[in-house]
Amino acid sequence: VGDVYPHPTCAAVGSFDGLHRAHRYILGRCGVLSDELKTLVITFGEHPRRDGDLLFTTEEKLEALEEMGVDAVLLLERKDMALKAEEFVSLLITHLRVRRLLMGYDHRFGRGREGSPDWLVARLKDYSFETYVFPPLKYDGEVVSSSRIRQLLKEGKVERANLLLGYPYRITGEVVKGEGWGRRLGFPTANLKVPPEKLLPADGVYAVLVPQVRRYGVMHIGARPTLNLRRSVEVHILNFEGKVPEKLKVHILARIRGVMRFPSPEALREQIRRDIELMNSIINRLATL
Amino acid sequence: VGDVYPHPTCAAVGSFDGLHRAHRYILGRCGVLSDELKTLVITFGEHPRRDGDLLFTTEEKLEALEEMGVDAVLLLERKDMALKAEEFVSLLITHLRVRRLLMGYDHRFGRGREGSPDWLVARLKDYSFETYVFPPLKYDGEVVSSSRIRQLLKEGKVERANLLLGYPYRITGEVVKGEGWGRRLGFPTANLKVPPEKLLPADGVYAVLVPQVRRYGVMHIGARPTLNLRRSVEVHILNFEGKVPEKLKVHILARIRGVMRFPSPEALREQIRRDIELMNSIINRLATL
Repeated sequence: VGDVYPHPTCAAVGSFDGLHRAHRYILGRCGVLSDELKTLVITFGEHPRRDGDLLFTTEEKLEALEEMGVDAVLLLERKDMALKAEEFVSLLITHLRVRRLLMGYDHRFGRGREGSPDWLVARLKDYSFETYVFPPLKYDGEVVSSSRIRQLLKEGKVERANLLLGYPYRITGEVVKGEGWGRRLGFPTANLKVPPEKLLPADGVYAVLVPQVRRYGVMHIGARPTLNLRRSVEVHILNFEGKVPEKLKVHILARIRGVMRFPSPEALREQIRRDIELMNSIINRLATL
Repeated sequence: VGDVYPHPTCAAVGSFDGLHRAHRYILGRCGVLSDELKTLVITFGEHPRRDGDLLFTTEEKLEALEEMGVDAVLLLERKDMALKAEEFVSLLITHLRVRRLLMGYDHRFGRGREGSPDWLVARLKDYSFETYVFPPLKYDGEVVSSSRIRQLLKEGKVERANLLLGYPYRITGEVVKGEGWGRRLGFPTANLKVPPEKLLPADGVYAVLVPQVRRYGVMHIGARPTLNLRRSVEVHILNFEGKVPEKLKVHILARIRGVMRFPSPEALREQIRRDIELMNSIINRLATL
């Protein structure tokens, strides 16, 4: 977005990490409310969160917002987050030409999280934009929030997390050379290098979909012997003989089991066979949903 | 509205006195936002304002809201206005099934005007409705508000008031027997009995439209000799020979002049002729707008 955005906008402001059901609801309303205005999402680029705790990389966020049909995205930088709430509002009006502003009830903006929806609404006398504030969205009995989804993923509760997300949690990684033990066992795996900011679910084995090659797969997430490395992410694609894409996307469908230790390669091979069997039953269950 | 309103609603809450441009804008958004919900207006029935200070009688308000295509109207009574803000919100959720709530930035509700839009937004964590708050609407350089329109009318600035209203200010009154001096002068007038709560513009002579008989007219508002009576409202309909409706509606288009004293009936008759001439030039001007 340039210095002065040329079109008057209907803007949604928020972290939009994961673009879960509540985020999608707000963006849907943004579309409904936009009329002749351009839709704009104002969100974090460099997120202040610590590594390994984001549902989306910036690239994934932009891709997901584009899929939602948003006209423009403003990625806030660290320096923007140092703005006072008043300065942030002036940015909205002057530089982004915001006429309608949508946000969740829990959104905070400005230095020290000074700006809240009620802070803004109390000042509407002096501002020229309509403010739309959305209450908590409940799904299947609980409030949908990025932090709740993060917590579920960290506990390995992928299916529940997916329910709140509204789609299967995704990981994208560069395929890098692994240690080759999978191949030696008869189950070749693609080793994914996942960006450091991206949240990985709890260690364990997961049923995944690999949309690029239209196959299901089994993904193993686990600690590496060398502790200063990021946890390993390995994907065995079922019934697949072709070339694995250089950048692999996986949709995580369900958790199969936790991490186990095996007394022998045979025991591990046997477990992997059982994992794949379980995987097939999971696929059948998913297919009937 | 019964004890429990049967449909989930998209509700606009406010005084809506006069249903001016900003009110109409909010009701328009209410329609856009309603989707599958029923639209509901929550407003004052017995307004706490003092007499002679309302742009709308309750009847006029209901008629105007119906014209706007609102599905239902809840007229709050004096006892409802004694509710605490918290109780009012509980009424919205439980009895009116409000899913989306629209209000102006300056709306206050609950005992002692405790509830403001920001008060409400700060509590959205616990509530289940979307809250849409609208900033001041400016028209022709000034903020549109009922109190500003009242002030303009009291100063006789009817044309400016009409600009902010978005339509000509209207008066409805029962035609009652007058003193007959108009008829004796050759200009028969209908004397209107206007409900006591209705605001009358400043004393003077106004150009009006009488839509029921499709004629223009000259309206005189003035003090009565007997001071404990409401100010007199007399309408002379131009070029009209038929029967005047029992309940007459007039649209006030423009102010012709203030109240004058006349040394003789002839001087008054002469002035009335000049008023009608001026009236005709006003009509021509209005026709070219």
